[in-house]
Amino acid sequence: MDSPKEKSTKERLLNSGSILFGEKGYGQVSVREICKHAHTSMNMIHHYFGSKEGLFEAIVDHFDKQLFAIPIKLLAKSPRSKEDFQAKIELLFETTLDAYLENKVILVFVDREQPKLDSLIEFSIGFKAFIEQAQQLGFARKELDADMVLGFMLDRIHNQVQFLPWIKKNHGLDIENDKAYRTRWCEANVDLFMNGIAS
Amino acid sequence: MDSPKEKSTKERLLNSGSILFGEKGYGQVSVREICKHAHTSMNMIHHYFGSKEGLFEAIVDHFDKQLFAIPIKLLAKSPRSKEDFQAKIELLFETTLDAYLENKVILVFVDREQPKLDSLIEFSIGFKAFIEQAQQLGFARKELDADMVLGFMLDRIHNQVQFLPWIKKNHGLDIENDKAYRTRWCEANVDLFMNGIAS
Repeated sequence: MDSPKEKSTKERLLNSGSILFGEKGYGQVSVREICKHAHTSMNMIHHYFGSKEGLFEAIVDHFDKQLFAIPIKLLAKSPRSKEDFQAKIELLFETTLDAYLENKVILVFVDREQPKLDSLIEFSIGFKAFIEQAQQLGFARKELDADMVLGFMLDRIHNQVQFLPWIKKNHGLDIENDKAYRTRWCEANVDLFMNGIAS
Repeated sequence: MDSPKEKSTKERLLNSGSILFGEKGYGQVSVREICKHAHTSMNMIHHYFGSKEGLFEAIVDHFDKQLFAIPIKLLAKSPRSKEDFQAKIELLFETTLDAYLENKVILVFVDREQPKLDSLIEFSIGFKAFIEQAQQLGFARKELDADMVLGFMLDRIHNQVQFLPWIKKNHGLDIENDKAYRTRWCEANVDLFMNGIAS
């Protein structure tokens, strides 16, 4: 087991790697730079991750596991009623948004490198099964393509976090710190998601 | 007026600037690199754009004007009927997707630098007016927040283009070259946009 101090060095390396890979791109960052940014000696990346590539994989793995852990659990059971279906969709929006916000530093570099995300695949499978159950139970429309439904939810959440600085600067809206906006954003998007725009 | 040759040098500089700014970030690219990439002499950026900053602004301006020119025209008139409303929404998805695909090289760097986009503001105003007219005419639900509706459409299209390489690699789907997928994608998203998921 890691001692507290070891854990902290490891976490600083994960954090510095995320920031520098995001800012400059994986290929443009040296092991020396990451260690300097993390205030550790040069051999620590080798010690904890084997190589720069190992650090990259550890960051992606950490991000991947964090991002969809709660959403995957939420979708494990079929909806019991129309109200339960609606409530679960609401929770899904809120918890996924929280997970993206917590990992927003890593998101920049994940978007850039576009690695394979194993738990995204697991989440997609769970989400599709959940939508299919809702269709069979008569809570969701039969015509739906579950992939597109998932895309709608993830695109909205992803971009709200990706463009957080832009939205803050140009619209004065801050989903991270403004609770009222966060609530309104989730409610309006769940409503749109559930009911569409046509009257 | 520019001669054909002059136009071509200018366009090559715009293109090379977009590619290099996108790959490395604005701050990491030198005038020398851009000129080399564009196969022009060193003083051409000065001649056409004044400076690196001038080139940056010219690329953003070009992108901004291109991206929303057709969508802005489409939204200028109120929908005449429910069918016309649906048809215009379909056209809006298709033409906006085309414009994003045509400008996909610039998108990488616009996402990174997140500059102010004037015609996005113009498009937003037009879109909101269009949705409000549809609400008054009874074609769209009264509860809608037009900003969120716009966000849904743009996020879907933006990300389909931003993650084109990732979607191609992981799902074998190519919205740029696979006409059947493009049609299916537009239809499914317009359906979701219009009708939501609830039955």
